Amino acid sequence: MSKASINSQRLLDRLRALGEIGRLADGRLTRLAGSDADKAGRDAFVSWLQGAGLEVAIDRIGNVFGIWKLPENAGERPLLLGSHIDTVIDAGIYDGCYGVLAALEVIETLKEARYAPARPIAVAAFTNEEGVRYAPDMMGSLVHAGGLGADEALATVGTDGTILGAELARIGYAGQEEPGFLKPHAYIELHIEQGPVLDRESVPIGAVENLQGISWQRVTIDGHANHAGTTPMSMRRDAGYAAARVIAFLRDRARTSNTPTVATVGCISFEPNAINVIPSRATFTVDLRDPDEQRLLEEEDALADHLKELAGAEDVTISVERLARFQPVTFDRGIVELIEKAARGRGLAAKRMTSGAGHDAQMIARIAPAAMIFVPSVDGISHNPREHTSGTDLVAGANILLDVVAQLAAN
Amino acid sequence: MSKASINSQRLLDRLRALGEIGRLADGRLTRLAGSDADKAGRDAFVSWLQGAGLEVAIDRIGNVFGIWKLPENAGERPLLLGSHIDTVIDAGIYDGCYGVLAALEVIETLKEARYAPARPIAVAAFTNEEGVRYAPDMMGSLVHAGGLGADEALATVGTDGTILGAELARIGYAGQEEPGFLKPHAYIELHIEQGPVLDRESVPIGAVENLQGISWQRVTIDGHANHAGTTPMSMRRDAGYAAARVIAFLRDRARTSNTPTVATVGCISFEPNAINVIPSRATFTVDLRDPDEQRLLEEEDALADHLKELAGAEDVTISVERLARFQPVTFDRGIVELIEKAARGRGLAAKRMTSGAGHDAQMIARIAPAAMIFVPSVDGISHNPREHTSGTDLVAGANILLDVVAQLAAN
Repeated sequence: MSKASINSQRLLDRLRALGEIGRLADGRLTRLAGSDADKAGRDAFVSWLQGAGLEVAIDRIGNVFGIWKLPENAGERPLLLGSHIDTVIDAGIYDGCYGVLAALEVIETLKEARYAPARPIAVAAFTNEEGVRYAPDMMGSLVHAGGLGADEALATVGTDGTILGAELARIGYAGQEEPGFLKPHAYIELHIEQGPVLDRESVPIGAVENLQGISWQRVTIDGHANHAGTTPMSMRRDAGYAAARVIAFLRDRARTSNTPTVATVGCISFEPNAINVIPSRATFTVDLRDPDEQRLLEEEDALADHLKELAGAEDVTISVERLARFQPVTFDRGIVELIEKAARGRGLAAKRMTSGAGHDAQMIARIAPAAMIFVPSVDGISHNPREHTSGTDLVAGANILLDVVAQLAAN
Repeated sequence: MSKASINSQRLLDRLRALGEIGRLADGRLTRLAGSDADKAGRDAFVSWLQGAGLEVAIDRIGNVFGIWKLPENAGERPLLLGSHIDTVIDAGIYDGCYGVLAALEVIETLKEARYAPARPIAVAAFTNEEGVRYAPDMMGSLVHAGGLGADEALATVGTDGTILGAELARIGYAGQEEPGFLKPHAYIELHIEQGPVLDRESVPIGAVENLQGISWQRVTIDGHANHAGTTPMSMRRDAGYAAARVIAFLRDRARTSNTPTVATVGCISFEPNAINVIPSRATFTVDLRDPDEQRLLEEEDALADHLKELAGAEDVTISVERLARFQPVTFDRGIVELIEKAARGRGLAAKRMTSGAGHDAQMIARIAPAAMIFVPSVDGISHNPREHTSGTDLVAGANILLDVVAQLAAN
């Protein structure tokens, strides 16, 4: 089995075909969860599952499974592969879709090679990973892992006022299976990195050993609006300056540490936002991430200490609102080592790395050993039509998945 | 003459009466230049001029003059007092109006005291000082001083699409006099400080010796948008962080210097302004002011040097657009000393100070010796309904103006 490889053409053709579904007249690709475009994408996927002779199962939250089961392994827990096929607005064609179609490709390759797995192998396309239309993101995998009730999830009201359950029923993907019906033996997700590390370092395979914890906060600083010309520097309570100090603090602290902590201030606004008025209010977001929960807590504490000190020094009032908080996820060491071993077996460099973005794998990791394989994203670009991974890298990643699956399904 | 004082009640009554003109049903006061409310305010002012027996003259740009001329001084250049009666949106009642009505009050007091000035004394209400509806601000005094042609000014298109000249004609204030017809011997403007210095220091009189130069720039920093989770700190080109560095640089430099330089960043925006995306672009305004032109140039240079260094260090592109630039104005030392002397004569503390805001006096200073008298603004608040100066301070300022005028008109 070690010499088999996936059918590159079939994988790339399907990726391109799926990437045309939901593309508007203006050329932009958008397949939001539960939309007509999502239905069309799901229909294509299901037709490919059926063409490959897989058993198709759909659960109540709309997760689609293609299961390859043999009479002799039907009693075993399946090895689960997967990702998602919903997209953001104006998306690229790789995010999620690559993992789903490569998983299908791996299963077809094994079937065609008459490989006899010791357990079923299944591919999943989880509902609403992107969370653009319905919050939270990674919803289908979260429900599958039992972290959110199916009925609660189905009642979610979208940004357009629709209800997810009604939309899934409308497009024919409110399935019969109870979420979580498939208990995986292990879970592997192949994905584009969506970051620049592999591309910059010219490493084709990422063996993803963990996934960052995320802390999102909104900071509001209240000072005092005054005339920019008539108020001496010593008499100011400048909320905008205080915000600048926080932005510099976060970046400088993360930049000079030897930890993988990343800190980002992505949104900001000043009030009254007039050229000749000292800002009375500055509001900005803080995105802190770290693969280590203890360190993430320390970074949150360091920010809180800084804000407290700043409030005193600048005579401003600072309030903080927590927007989101996810603990880091540690993936299964055994699977990560299998990924590295598979890369060595194909003469490919591999790098142990951390996922900076959220993925379905972090949800399934709650109920089964899990890990991820990354392939390079050119310039780290994702959630954008310029999202790109070379055909060579796409094929290499799928072959590593093939080898890992063959190993994990062997017993 | 030294023991005469103004009629406090008449001054305060007129201030309150003018402050009710242009007040909407919601209680907000707005008299934009050339509006119906401006007409109503002008009509009240003209009726008071006529009541005081002054000669009313209106020029083509709508500046209104009330001139007290005696047969024996008709050939001399008049001493000019004044300010403006147009307002910002949702204004207080003191900005501008106080200087105009106090000037009228001073002239009436002198007339009633049968004072015999050696030269005519005139009060001016200059058109469109605020510049809210028509740019630039201080337009009427700028035209009077010859800095802008009357026809060009009259052709100005307002924020509401109207043409200033047509609006002035519509409200009956497109006058016959050629702008600049009145050549002042000297000019004095009494005004609320619009800043916190006198109020904080409990000094009732400001002897304004100069007016800050103003440099307005818009800075645009272009970096690279990337995923906040997947992009290591070392691989970022964060336009938002670079902007924060500039804001901190400007404030820290101005705060730690011993100069009166003030630096303000009042407006900011990030693109794409998403919580989990490193800003690709940050745009912000810089307001730099200093009463010394050489130092203002040095501050502009220091900012330019900082931006250049920052662009290299952060791998970002920085462009700067000049929005406005006014050189500082030095007022007439003799008049400033007269103001201080008058304050001493009435047992009032006076402080030499710099005007941080722009005023009509800076325009008239181009053609005549000029100076300003400031009175305290409670908490430094202006351009706001909470703008306030105590009756005691208003009366004291008007009496100082009275004494200075009596001195200057004596020969």
